[in-house]
Amino acid sequence: MSSHLPAVLAALDASRDAAVARWFELLRIPSVSTDPAFKADCLRAAEWCAAQLREMGFHEAKVVATTGHPMVVAHDRAVRTKGVPHVLFYGHYDVQPADPLELWTTPPFEPRLADDPDNGKVVIARGACDDKGQLSTFLEAARAWKQVAGDLPIAVSVLLEGEEECGSPSVPDFFDKHGHEIKADYVLVCDTGQWNKETPGVTTQLRGICSTEITVHAANRDLHSGRYGGPAANPIRVLTRIVAAMHDETGRITIPGFYDGLRMPDDETRRNWAALNFDGKAFLGGVGLSSPAGEANFTIMEQALARPTLEFNGIGGGYQGVGVKTVIPSKASVKITCRLVPGQNPKAIPSAIRRFVEARLPDDCTATCEAGMGSDAIVIDPKLPFVSKAQASLSDEWGRRAPLLAVGGSIPIVTAFKESLGMDSLLVGFGLEDDKVHSPNEKYNLSSFHKGARSWARILAKLGA
Amino acid sequence: MSSHLPAVLAALDASRDAAVARWFELLRIPSVSTDPAFKADCLRAAEWCAAQLREMGFHEAKVVATTGHPMVVAHDRAVRTKGVPHVLFYGHYDVQPADPLELWTTPPFEPRLADDPDNGKVVIARGACDDKGQLSTFLEAARAWKQVAGDLPIAVSVLLEGEEECGSPSVPDFFDKHGHEIKADYVLVCDTGQWNKETPGVTTQLRGICSTEITVHAANRDLHSGRYGGPAANPIRVLTRIVAAMHDETGRITIPGFYDGLRMPDDETRRNWAALNFDGKAFLGGVGLSSPAGEANFTIMEQALARPTLEFNGIGGGYQGVGVKTVIPSKASVKITCRLVPGQNPKAIPSAIRRFVEARLPDDCTATCEAGMGSDAIVIDPKLPFVSKAQASLSDEWGRRAPLLAVGGSIPIVTAFKESLGMDSLLVGFGLEDDKVHSPNEKYNLSSFHKGARSWARILAKLGA
Repeated sequence: MSSHLPAVLAALDASRDAAVARWFELLRIPSVSTDPAFKADCLRAAEWCAAQLREMGFHEAKVVATTGHPMVVAHDRAVRTKGVPHVLFYGHYDVQPADPLELWTTPPFEPRLADDPDNGKVVIARGACDDKGQLSTFLEAARAWKQVAGDLPIAVSVLLEGEEECGSPSVPDFFDKHGHEIKADYVLVCDTGQWNKETPGVTTQLRGICSTEITVHAANRDLHSGRYGGPAANPIRVLTRIVAAMHDETGRITIPGFYDGLRMPDDETRRNWAALNFDGKAFLGGVGLSSPAGEANFTIMEQALARPTLEFNGIGGGYQGVGVKTVIPSKASVKITCRLVPGQNPKAIPSAIRRFVEARLPDDCTATCEAGMGSDAIVIDPKLPFVSKAQASLSDEWGRRAPLLAVGGSIPIVTAFKESLGMDSLLVGFGLEDDKVHSPNEKYNLSSFHKGARSWARILAKLGA
Repeated sequence: MSSHLPAVLAALDASRDAAVARWFELLRIPSVSTDPAFKADCLRAAEWCAAQLREMGFHEAKVVATTGHPMVVAHDRAVRTKGVPHVLFYGHYDVQPADPLELWTTPPFEPRLADDPDNGKVVIARGACDDKGQLSTFLEAARAWKQVAGDLPIAVSVLLEGEEECGSPSVPDFFDKHGHEIKADYVLVCDTGQWNKETPGVTTQLRGICSTEITVHAANRDLHSGRYGGPAANPIRVLTRIVAAMHDETGRITIPGFYDGLRMPDDETRRNWAALNFDGKAFLGGVGLSSPAGEANFTIMEQALARPTLEFNGIGGGYQGVGVKTVIPSKASVKITCRLVPGQNPKAIPSAIRRFVEARLPDDCTATCEAGMGSDAIVIDPKLPFVSKAQASLSDEWGRRAPLLAVGGSIPIVTAFKESLGMDSLLVGFGLEDDKVHSPNEKYNLSSFHKGARSWARILAKLGA
C-alpha cells in the first residue's frame, strides 16, 4: 500500500489551493460552542464536515444529534473488510469565543492569508489552528489517499466533536449510545502542537482539567455607595478576599486537598523532558513575560507541564462601563479552571473549592459554586507501537527526530476514549507556540497546514505497513 | 408676599396631573452622563429644562455649552430688582446608567405609575428620584408661584447641571467663565433625602468623594490557560491580591495616609444624630443585610455618615460570558470610589492608592491608576438663618419637626459653590431610603413629589419674609 505514498504526497502538493479554499469555508462558520447564540452555526459546521467526508468517499458520514452540539461520525468503505488496524480519527469543529473582538485586526470569522515575519504565510482566523486547521490536515491527507489509491491504507472511522471548547458535556451519553459505532483499535487525535517550528513531536502526556464558577451575593439589590457605603457588605471586597487566599506567597494553591494523590513524572519522562533543552525564558518572552509566576521551586517547564494550576479565567461584578458609577453591587463572580496532573481528582477539587469559599464567607454573604467540566490528566505509554511509527513518519517528513512531548493543556475526550471505550490515543498535531490559540488573531502557518497533511499521509502509510 | 402662599399651595394641588405629565416627559430622556453614547440625550434634557423655565416666565433661560454636557442657566425677571435675597437653585438633569438592565421590571426610561404596598402610588424610572423628581419639586413650586403671584417671593436664578453623576468635571471651567452670572447669596439644592417617610430634614453634612480606576496588565495578549497556566502571571490573581489588601480584618482601610487629617463630628453634631434614634438594623434590613461590614468599633450610623469608605464599584477581567473559556487574560481592572469625611484630601488619596498598588506589583505586571473626580466633605453651619427658616417651613408642611441631617453621599458641586463662589448651600430634598437611587427600579413616591413641591413653595415664602 505504501507504494502509493509518493503519488499521495505529490497529489497533496498539487492541490494546495483547493485545500486552503476548503479550510477557509470551515473557518467562515462561527461555531462557538460555549455560547448558545451560535448553536445554529455549530450545526452548520458539523454538516459541512459530514458533506466533505461524503465527497471524499467516506460512507455513512452523518451528523449525530447529542444532548448538546452534534457529533460528525463517518466510516471509510474499507472498515471491517481488511486485516489492517482500524483507527478512529478525532478532531473538533467547535472553536473558542472570539472576544475580546476589539483586539482582532480583521474579523475573526473572515479568514485571510497574511505575511508574517517569523512564519512566512499564515492564515488568521478563530480556529485557524484550534482545531479547524489541525483536523483539516488529516482530512486532506485522507482525501489525497482516497483520490490516488482509491482506499486508505488502514481502516479509518472519523469522529468530529462540537463541544471540545466547553468541556465535552455530551460525550458520556454519546459514548453510551454510540460507543460501539466508533470503537476502534486506537484513536488518532490532531489537537496538539510541535516542539518548535522545525521539530514535530508525539504528545504522551496531557494535563486534566476541572472548572467552577463562584458567585458571591450580598444585598438584595445594587446599592448607592454614598448611602450604604460603610455598613453594607460589598461582594467584590468579599470575593477578592477569598480569591486572593487561594494561592500563598510562593504560588502554592491553598485549597485543602487540592494536591491529594498528585504524582510527579517518572525518571525516564524527566530525562526525556530534560533532553528537549526547553528555553523557559524564550517561552515567557514570547508573550511579554520574564518571571515564572507558578509555584516557587519548580522550573518553568515543570510549572507548565508537571504541576497543577488554579487559574482565574474571568472576574466580574458591578459597573464596568465608561466612567464612574457609585454603586455597591449585589453580587460578583469569578470563573476558575484548574489544570490537573496525574493522580488528581477532577471531581473532588470543585467540591474542595466550594468548601474553601463557604468557610470564608462573612455574615450577610452567600455563594453559589457551579462546577463544570472535569477530566483526569492523561499519560500514553510511549512503548505502544503506534507511537514509534508516528515518530518515524514525522521524522521522514520533517528531517528531524520527533520527540515525545507533554503539554499543559487538556483534551477531556482523550480520557473518555480510554475510560469508556478502552482506546489509547496517538496525539500528533502541528500547532506552534505563537499560534495565539484562544487569543485574538489566532493563526496557523500555511506550512503547518501543508506539512501536516503530508505528515498524516505518511503516518497512515506506516500504520498500515 | 406670603399672603399668596395659600393660593400657591392650592394651585399646586389643582395641577397635580399636569405636573406629573411634565415630570414624565423629562424621565423619558435617557440623559446618562457617564456614557458618551447618551451625549445627544443629555443635550435634549438640558433643552427641555430650559424650555420649561422659559414657559413658566424665567427670562434668559438658556443652555450653556461646557467642556462636557451643557448647563441650564436661568434667571427670574425679579433678579437684581428687589431688596430681597437672591438665591441660586441647583439640580442636575443627568442620571446614573440604568444597567443591569435585566433587573428592571419595565424599561428604565419609560416611566410608569405603580402601586407600592409600602409607599402608595410611586413613579418608577431611572432618575424618578435622583434628580429629575427632586428638581421638579422646585420647578413646580416656582411655576405655581409665578402663575398665582406673577413673581417669586425672592430673586431666583437656576443652574441645572448635566454631569453630577460623573463627578462634575466641567464645573471648574464653567465657574471660571460664568461664575459671575450665577453668583447669589446662597444656593438651594434639591438632591438629598428625608429622615424617614414622615419626617423631612435639612442636610448639613455630606461626605466627599474621590475615584480611581486601577488596571493591572500582565502578558501582551490573552493566553491559553493550558499552555501558559502556571508560569504566566495572571492579572486577576494579582489584582485581587492587591484589592484584598486594601482593608484589614477589622474593615479598616490600609492605604497609608488614607485617614490623614480626618476629623470626627463635634459633640453637638453627635448629640443631634443620637437624638434621631437611627435604627441601623432596619436600615440594613431594608436591603437584605444584617451585619455592619464597615470599620469595627463604629456604629452603623457612624460607618454610614462619619467614617470614610473605600468601595469597589466594579471589577472586570477575562471571560465573563456564558460557559467556560480557558484563558489567562492580559489585564484586569477595578473601579474604586472613596467617600470622605471632613479633613480628608480628595486629591491626595488617589495618589496614595497608586503608591499602594505599585508597591505590590509582582514582576511582569504593570498598573495604570486613573484618578477621576474628587471633592471635599461638606459641613454647613446650622446657625445660618436659611437653615432654621427651611426647618420651620418643612415642619409646617409635614407636621413634624425637621431635624438636621448628615448624609453619606456626595454632591461635589456644593464644595465648588463654597470654594469658588463663596456660597453656602441649603440642602433640602425628599428622597427616601427605599427609592433605589442608582439601582434598578428606582422610584419616587407621588407624595414626595407633591409634598416636595408644596414644601418648596413654603420655603420660598419664608426666605422672602
